[in-house]
Amino acid sequence: MTFLRQPTRAGVRDAAAKIAAILPATPLFTCEIKDVTIAFKAESLQPMGAFKIRGAWHRLTALDEAARARGVVAFSSGNHAQGVAWAARRLGMAATIVMPHDAPAVKRDATLALGAEVVGYDRATESREGIAARLAEARGATLVPSFDDPWIIEGQGSAGVEAAAQMTRAGLPEPTHVVAPCGGGGLAAGLALALPDARMTVVEPEGWDDMRRSLEAGWIEPVGPNPPPTACDSLQTLRVSPLTFDVLSRRGVTGVAVSEAETAAAQRWAAERFRLVIEPGGAVALAALLTGRITPEPGMLVLLSGGNIDPAAYARMLAA
Amino acid sequence: MTFLRQPTRAGVRDAAAKIAAILPATPLFTCEIKDVTIAFKAESLQPMGAFKIRGAWHRLTALDEAARARGVVAFSSGNHAQGVAWAARRLGMAATIVMPHDAPAVKRDATLALGAEVVGYDRATESREGIAARLAEARGATLVPSFDDPWIIEGQGSAGVEAAAQMTRAGLPEPTHVVAPCGGGGLAAGLALALPDARMTVVEPEGWDDMRRSLEAGWIEPVGPNPPPTACDSLQTLRVSPLTFDVLSRRGVTGVAVSEAETAAAQRWAAERFRLVIEPGGAVALAALLTGRITPEPGMLVLLSGGNIDPAAYARMLAA
Repeated sequence: MTFLRQPTRAGVRDAAAKIAAILPATPLFTCEIKDVTIAFKAESLQPMGAFKIRGAWHRLTALDEAARARGVVAFSSGNHAQGVAWAARRLGMAATIVMPHDAPAVKRDATLALGAEVVGYDRATESREGIAARLAEARGATLVPSFDDPWIIEGQGSAGVEAAAQMTRAGLPEPTHVVAPCGGGGLAAGLALALPDARMTVVEPEGWDDMRRSLEAGWIEPVGPNPPPTACDSLQTLRVSPLTFDVLSRRGVTGVAVSEAETAAAQRWAAERFRLVIEPGGAVALAALLTGRITPEPGMLVLLSGGNIDPAAYARMLAA
Repeated sequence: MTFLRQPTRAGVRDAAAKIAAILPATPLFTCEIKDVTIAFKAESLQPMGAFKIRGAWHRLTALDEAARARGVVAFSSGNHAQGVAWAARRLGMAATIVMPHDAPAVKRDATLALGAEVVGYDRATESREGIAARLAEARGATLVPSFDDPWIIEGQGSAGVEAAAQMTRAGLPEPTHVVAPCGGGGLAAGLALALPDARMTVVEPEGWDDMRRSLEAGWIEPVGPNPPPTACDSLQTLRVSPLTFDVLSRRGVTGVAVSEAETAAAQRWAAERFRLVIEPGGAVALAALLTGRITPEPGMLVLLSGGNIDPAAYARMLAA
């Protein structure tokens, strides 16, 4: 795949302005952890329940009129699908989403409710990339990747611009250390561009910590064969992209991994302390902090990146 | 009990200004219900998880220096306790809370964490009013009622001032119909004063709908003997106050009752649609809307009044 351009800090600022024009800032919560005030950005409270709405909006609004008329195609287990569907509906565009048959029903239903067409595939035997590429070609539509795209990265980074402004207004220091969940790395790369002076840590589920291993190795290492089951459906990315890896690698970002039990405990903590429903993949950065894998420090910003989860699955998680 | 004054609309405006100076506005969410855009005010996202922080702040800041030095006493099953404890800590005052032994652990622990002293009592055999009054007299402290007080009512009403401004900014009509959960009626009376041009409906759990019956009768009727069990611990008020009843009665407010199952369904809906943890008592107004007991109309404002619930109890509710 060739890229027309690299994502830039100017692009993130542009995305932040475009997004501020249509969406209120998601709330920033603060909480004392070991006597340090930590800021939490609740992207779970976006209209479709995750930060993905940011990248989708920045990408779709960058298309010219002819491209808009031909619509967009995306592949996603859920949150990116909803982000693209939301942005497409708002712009009056057609959206087709390629989604695994085993995606959470709440995510598929929400995507359909946003007016998108959903095309299913089998995660084990079919290639979603192949299906999406064929659909896009047949329809002349634009393929919207979930992280491997400069607009998507810049759009996700707008969360960092917004959070930094909110921290200043709340009398907190500038962000010194950003902790974010990582699937393909779109959010993390965007935040790294948005906040060039902050340290950064990415968090992944155990066995799916390919970004952590890649950053340690200095080259891209995919998820190993037979990765363990994880409740973090939104972070099940088998390989990160050169685009996201390069941004994080040049920045000296490091990663940590958290267990399924630690993620569930973080979800319970968020329900009790913040009264927020956070999906497993959205709670891993919080889990890294609560388990002490990351040490609280003034100016720390933690992303609660999404809240889309079936109520029944969520109830099981809380009760465990 | 004698009252020094009646709660007023000017008092609500004063409270709203005082609260805006220390707390960011709680988010206003919108959602289409039967093709009508409804506004939802998420008071569950207050720092201590409920609107009660508003009345407590307005009341405690109205005390003079001598009274502040002697501290405050309150009786509450939880949310009012946390509101008073939060405001007292912020003002450097001592707070003593009289709380039933069977109050949710999450609420008692949170009150203790806010630095208040908690005095337990037996709901069946002891009078919390008596215990609180004796404590207040012995210490020279100010008793802070949970609803039967003009400052408390005015403070709670600030949620209406805030919501109306947010609705205008979101391009919605002025509030035309406000739907609010009702225990003792402090929130409802405050909203009625804040929004004099809106219709109003109060919502209570079945068997605890004494405000509904009182408004229908034209005089105060207490909850009947042996009321059914309810998960709505924050709405278990046995008798409303003349102060709240008069405001609502003069306004022609009516009430509806919802079942336990309907409340649980509303909690699940809020988790899935808004990614918000709402406690049973905080979800009854939403339940009235979702069940069709209240017909959606443009300009409707629904209060999601609190989110303090034990994760285990919440899990059982979601799974039911």
